[in-house]
Amino acid sequence: MAGGTRVLTVELGERSYPIYIGSGLIEETGKKFAEHGFPVKSPILLITDSAVEGLYAERVEISLRALGYTVSRAVVPSGESSKSLEMLDVLVEQALKAGLDRKSTVIALGGGVVGDLAGFVAASYMRGVRFVQIPTTILAHDSSVGGKVAVNHRLAKNIIGAFHQPEFVLYDLNTLASLPAREVKAGLSEVIKHGLIWNEDFVAWCDENAEKLLGLEPDALGYALYEGCKVKSTVVSRDERENDLRAILNLGHTIGHALEAVAGYGQLLHGEAIAIGMVGAARLAAKFGYSADIAETTERIFRKFGLPVRIPDDCATDEIMGAMLHDKKFAEGKMVFVVPTSIGSVEIRNDVPSAWVTEIVDGLREGKSQS
Amino acid sequence: MAGGTRVLTVELGERSYPIYIGSGLIEETGKKFAEHGFPVKSPILLITDSAVEGLYAERVEISLRALGYTVSRAVVPSGESSKSLEMLDVLVEQALKAGLDRKSTVIALGGGVVGDLAGFVAASYMRGVRFVQIPTTILAHDSSVGGKVAVNHRLAKNIIGAFHQPEFVLYDLNTLASLPAREVKAGLSEVIKHGLIWNEDFVAWCDENAEKLLGLEPDALGYALYEGCKVKSTVVSRDERENDLRAILNLGHTIGHALEAVAGYGQLLHGEAIAIGMVGAARLAAKFGYSADIAETTERIFRKFGLPVRIPDDCATDEIMGAMLHDKKFAEGKMVFVVPTSIGSVEIRNDVPSAWVTEIVDGLREGKSQS
Ligand SMILES: NC(=O)c1ccc[n+]([C@@H]2O[C@H](COP(=O)([O-])OP(=O)(O)OC[C@H]3O[C@@H](n4cnc5c(N)ncnc54)[C@H](O)[C@@H]3O)[C@@H](O)[C@H]2O)c1
Ligand SMILES: NC(=O)c1ccc[n+]([C@@H]2O[C@H](COP(=O)([O-])OP(=O)(O)OC[C@H]3O[C@@H](n4cnc5c(N)ncnc54)[C@H](O)[C@@H]3O)[C@@H](O)[C@H]2O)c1
Ligand SMILES: [Zn+2]
Ligand SMILES: [Zn+2]
Repeated sequence: MAGGTRVLTVELGERSYPIYIGSGLIEETGKKFAEHGFPVKSPILLITDSAVEGLYAERVEISLRALGYTVSRAVVPSGESSKSLEMLDVLVEQALKAGLDRKSTVIALGGGVVGDLAGFVAASYMRGVRFVQIPTTILAHDSSVGGKVAVNHRLAKNIIGAFHQPEFVLYDLNTLASLPAREVKAGLSEVIKHGLIWNEDFVAWCDENAEKLLGLEPDALGYALYEGCKVKSTVVSRDERENDLRAILNLGHTIGHALEAVAGYGQLLHGEAIAIGMVGAARLAAKFGYSADIAETTERIFRKFGLPVRIPDDCATDEIMGAMLHDKKFAEGKMVFVVPTSIGSVEIRNDVPSAWVTEIVDGLREGKSQS
Repeated sequence: MAGGTRVLTVELGERSYPIYIGSGLIEETGKKFAEHGFPVKSPILLITDSAVEGLYAERVEISLRALGYTVSRAVVPSGESSKSLEMLDVLVEQALKAGLDRKSTVIALGGGVVGDLAGFVAASYMRGVRFVQIPTTILAHDSSVGGKVAVNHRLAKNIIGAFHQPEFVLYDLNTLASLPAREVKAGLSEVIKHGLIWNEDFVAWCDENAEKLLGLEPDALGYALYEGCKVKSTVVSRDERENDLRAILNLGHTIGHALEAVAGYGQLLHGEAIAIGMVGAARLAAKFGYSADIAETTERIFRKFGLPVRIPDDCATDEIMGAMLHDKKFAEGKMVFVVPTSIGSVEIRNDVPSAWVTEIVDGLREGKSQS
């Protein structure tokens, strides 16, 4: 846990790649391109969003140009609605005009939205070019492992995409300083999730270091992102294509996704919704006879991180249940859930009575004004 | 060369797949789905075009339903312009409404256009579902090997795509009976190309059996498609991702693509344009000191198949040269070409003086009314 840059290798055979985590890394983008043997001749497309561009794009470009690389900039509006086929069309046009060839690289500079979108550009332009991620949100530690890239369709999120692994990920802790506090907390929710599914010690460490993490203390933050990425990486390495094990990463997401949909996208941040969802999943654990301490600890930690642990009053239970039904997790009155068995381990249950879920959703309210 | 169904395995490690070639195979679609262990529960989307739908879609569907499968039909307008992101959007909507899940299959019933488009739907829907090709043109023997799928951007053809191998290919010779004669000849042009780059005996066989092939005599046609697919398969197995060897498949395509662009897409069919291009490449061979017989044989065979071997008068040489320049095959006055060294073998030359190419393009005219 000393200072300096941490390096995590995501093990995926010949598609393995390193994640560099440290302070001041974007200034070394050019150097990293050279180290990884990227050809100077092939132009680079830097994709970023309107909130991130003014803060960091130029520094990345200067660093690349200093090493002789040619780089063009493409800026999309900040927000989920940029993950669309229309934007893919626009970005492919910019890639063509910038002269990108089959040895070129697409860089994603931004949060998960830019990562998913730019990653799908990289996956499909000329049937696949190099991809490099420079995440600028905490939540994007999640999207920087696993190679899932996608855009949305108006009828479904992330429905058009690919598996396309990056060549490397450059996680510059300095870029996180400009993140709104609410985004910091929401991002830490997924970090803690990685602890809850796999690593009890890391959960305890997060618990003890909440203040440092919320204050973006570099060494603590670097360690937390490293450990979070490591859990995801371990899971993904064993199951790249989401056949089985990878499903445990969805802890808190069954209720969480339903809450996001019912609250209206953008009302609850993803990390906030899944914090509530993880408390719900922990209460399910008690129904299956696991210790009630799991739910208590889960709730206490999320409160400590300033995350919501109760369902907003304006989300009716029947709407939430309806959204889960839509999510196809039902099978004959039974639902599929990731359920904790202790802090740091989970199991997948396909025998969760939907009545239990209704009860838990109802119980997760402070006020009782609705349903 | 006896009757019955031929089976060719495209060897690509764990992505290997069989191509079934024979008469009456679409009636066995359901049986083949069952043999390959496709789950009955997951709905199928059959994608076809407006010219093919009325002829064959129902037979495929009946055969699937007889084995208990659920299948929905999506029809796109016949023609290259259906290979678009807009059509991808529409087809994803249909896939969602038909309830396709991650174990579902997308079927392409049609020529190369439907194959490329439906293949990209299969590659990107939920980040990849099963894909089955039922080619109904001769040219599609080419697209049924190699896994290249794509849509066009208004600025570039095939620029947005993926490598996505089918689970199997069902080549029903009966469906070729309804193909317009001009499409038959254009398709055979690519079949002969596969001979010219790899297999002298097969070229001689095509030469001897021209009449049977043009008459769609099933056993001859089945053999020709088998051999054509086999050459492409051999090349692709050694170089799945087009690093090197795969480039030899572009024999005739440097001049051919330029002709298609200059004549206006649709004026010259692809197979026609590359027939002219292959005669040009064979004349280049003589410039490099290879036998002049190569050009004579090449030209004679294409004439025998009723294919054009001369550049249309209304395509000006400077426009053709300009289109090749645009194609980025130039490097400092030198161009890259696939050049025959004998009938049945080729080499890649990156030292072709552009002056030679101008001379050859000029020489490939009957009339001299245009420069
Ligand atoms: N591919 C995966 O495996 C995966 C995993 C999890 C989430 N996701 C996707 O990630 C997306 C959510 O990611 P996100 O939370 O990073 O959202 P985001 O990219 O929208 O970023 C959140 C907000 O913060 C702004 N921002 C980003 N970096 C900033 C910085 N350093 N300073 C100031 N503002 C900054 C953005 O402009 C945006 O307004 C979703 O689309 C989700 O589907 C993908
Ligand atoms: N993926 C690859 O490796 C690869 C290789 C070669 C070509 N292609 C692509 O293939 C496309 C060209 O393929 P194509 O020549 O088959 O074109 P196509 O699919 O447009 O078919 C040609 C015409 O014949 C009609 N048709 C198809 N089958 C018929 C039948 N049995 N009876 C009557 N009419 C029928 C079609 O409606 C169309 O009008 C191009 O888009 C090209 O880029 C891809
Ligand atoms: Zn999540
Ligand atoms: Zn071709």
